[in-house]
Amino acid sequence: MTDHQTVPLQATLRWQGDAGGHLLLLDQTRLPGEVVDLPCHTVEEVWQAIKRLAVRGAPAIGCAAAYGVCLSNPDLDSALKACDYLATSRPTAVNLFWALHRMRQVAKQAAGSPTFADQLLEAALAIHAEDRQMCAAIGRHGADLFADLPEGSNFLTHCNAGALATGGDGTALSVIFEIARRGLRPHVWVDETRPLLQGARLTAWELQQRGIDCTLICDSMAAKVMQEGRVQAVVTGADRIAANGDSANKIGTYGVAVLAAAHKIPFTIAAPTSTFDLELATGEEIPIEERAKEEITHGLQTSTAPAGVSVYNPAFDVTPASLIRAIITDRGVIDPISTKSVHRFLAT
Amino acid sequence: MTDHQTVPLQATLRWQGDAGGHLLLLDQTRLPGEVVDLPCHTVEEVWQAIKRLAVRGAPAIGCAAAYGVCLSNPDLDSALKACDYLATSRPTAVNLFWALHRMRQVAKQAAGSPTFADQLLEAALAIHAEDRQMCAAIGRHGADLFADLPEGSNFLTHCNAGALATGGDGTALSVIFEIARRGLRPHVWVDETRPLLQGARLTAWELQQRGIDCTLICDSMAAKVMQEGRVQAVVTGADRIAANGDSANKIGTYGVAVLAAAHKIPFTIAAPTSTFDLELATGEEIPIEERAKEEITHGLQTSTAPAGVSVYNPAFDVTPASLIRAIITDRGVIDPISTKSVHRFLAT
Repeated sequence: MTDHQTVPLQATLRWQGDAGGHLLLLDQTRLPGEVVDLPCHTVEEVWQAIKRLAVRGAPAIGCAAAYGVCLSNPDLDSALKACDYLATSRPTAVNLFWALHRMRQVAKQAAGSPTFADQLLEAALAIHAEDRQMCAAIGRHGADLFADLPEGSNFLTHCNAGALATGGDGTALSVIFEIARRGLRPHVWVDETRPLLQGARLTAWELQQRGIDCTLICDSMAAKVMQEGRVQAVVTGADRIAANGDSANKIGTYGVAVLAAAHKIPFTIAAPTSTFDLELATGEEIPIEERAKEEITHGLQTSTAPAGVSVYNPAFDVTPASLIRAIITDRGVIDPISTKSVHRFLAT
Repeated sequence: MTDHQTVPLQATLRWQGDAGGHLLLLDQTRLPGEVVDLPCHTVEEVWQAIKRLAVRGAPAIGCAAAYGVCLSNPDLDSALKACDYLATSRPTAVNLFWALHRMRQVAKQAAGSPTFADQLLEAALAIHAEDRQMCAAIGRHGADLFADLPEGSNFLTHCNAGALATGGDGTALSVIFEIARRGLRPHVWVDETRPLLQGARLTAWELQQRGIDCTLICDSMAAKVMQEGRVQAVVTGADRIAANGDSANKIGTYGVAVLAAAHKIPFTIAAPTSTFDLELATGEEIPIEERAKEEITHGLQTSTAPAGVSVYNPAFDVTPASLIRAIITDRGVIDPISTKSVHRFLAT
């Protein structure tokens, strides 16, 4: 048994108690310095936690929002209002809307029932449990996809698509964890991921906790390590995938995909099927959140830019399907990627 | 007259007094928050200032080192020792070695003369004055190169190749300043340039001081603004250019060049002819400085990564000549770029 199987990770999110209970989130804004839980007793507190990224990562946001609905008054009207409200927390990750859609359906079916609150909590727990299973399946399919790579291969990832981004073991990192579990000793280049440093603060921390070899780099160094021939594959998560395979993910992912193509390195995405939004034909229709300029100018507890400077701070970008070698899902791998193959895959 | 012509910039470096005087450096580690001079009275203080980036930018390092030699005891032996010592401060920028080579020659010629110290200072002042002229010439040649671009065009730059990087008005930014002087209202996308944020701290500050429109972005956002069609040209500086045109510059420059090529955006370099190192056939021979891991993990007055994490921190990368559309020098523009064209250009 190796380290990465024995070190328990603090849970990203967990429900405490029965239907009258509350949600505990691991406050990701305080990692890696402090490992502290953030208790949420109201819908508003969950909305705030999502908004300010105390919980982040597309699948984890979906789980958190589902639990958030359970914190509303136990009646249909309050539950539906909670769904509408939580949907305004962040615009890009589709898992949020997918989870809230499920909670809305359950609320409508359970309306008037004496077990209304229990049924909502059951639904949220089911979404969370399914997410755990999806993560595990993604890990297996991804490790199979990379089975031809030699022991000690180097992966590069951007942002955090690990246990902290999901209700389970992660998406992109679940693949890495499974490769490690198979004894193939992966090494991971971790893009620090400006402006909020999810790579440095979260991914490096997760990999370290599991005893997986990794090296932190600035985002601007990815091109150099590729040029040096020290990256065999790239794997990232996704926040929303259009019907043609175009994928929105953390800002910087598109650049990594262009660089990978230029260096003939396979660029792959790992995401649960709930990340697909078939209502959008292409990635151009995916709404991209813009966040506060202070994340760039003051994001690190100190001012790092002149006062009054103009800033552009898109939180996501869209990688066209043409640059994506394969999409690793809980149901298997999509490869090649086209509107036809995506539709056929999701219909099975 | 517009703002960018009237706002005086604090001098990046200047000598105070006669041959018995001292060097004043604008301490760039404290910008943009504080505009303070760092007096250097000894060779050691200049070495430290270069090492910890209080003065940085290939041409400015050359000027600072030349002045540094003037702080040694006024005899040949001390001057040569100072040259050897200052050459160990940083390995990549060739202007440092070029300037110290000139100072060595002057010291040897002036050995034993009662005006030894005066002759050293005269040589350092000449290097500085030439640098100012080279910057102005680069600005004119660059603005001519981009004369076909419409008013209000968008440039992208990485790191700082402005007045703060030189003894004059800069290299890449000198081009921008000249375009602004011609009334063509350039807009500049400023890569913040991790880990030390020379773009955010220095370039945004310089452009703001001169009233030039600019927008700060994280390095990982350059690909997105290119994808959005909002970059017409890229211009950066260089720290050393090999005989075939391969160019070392701040880490991240190579990635920007790959991205520019993928988006069919001209990628150009602006540098004085003193930046060429014809002794190196290709960029593979350029020594790349690796700096302390704390620049990435603790560079912003707070820890942003888990303790003990492995880090790779190369300060520079090499952009192959094949990705460079043109090199803008003080003597004109090199285009196309090849060993033959570089040699022919520098021989004239």
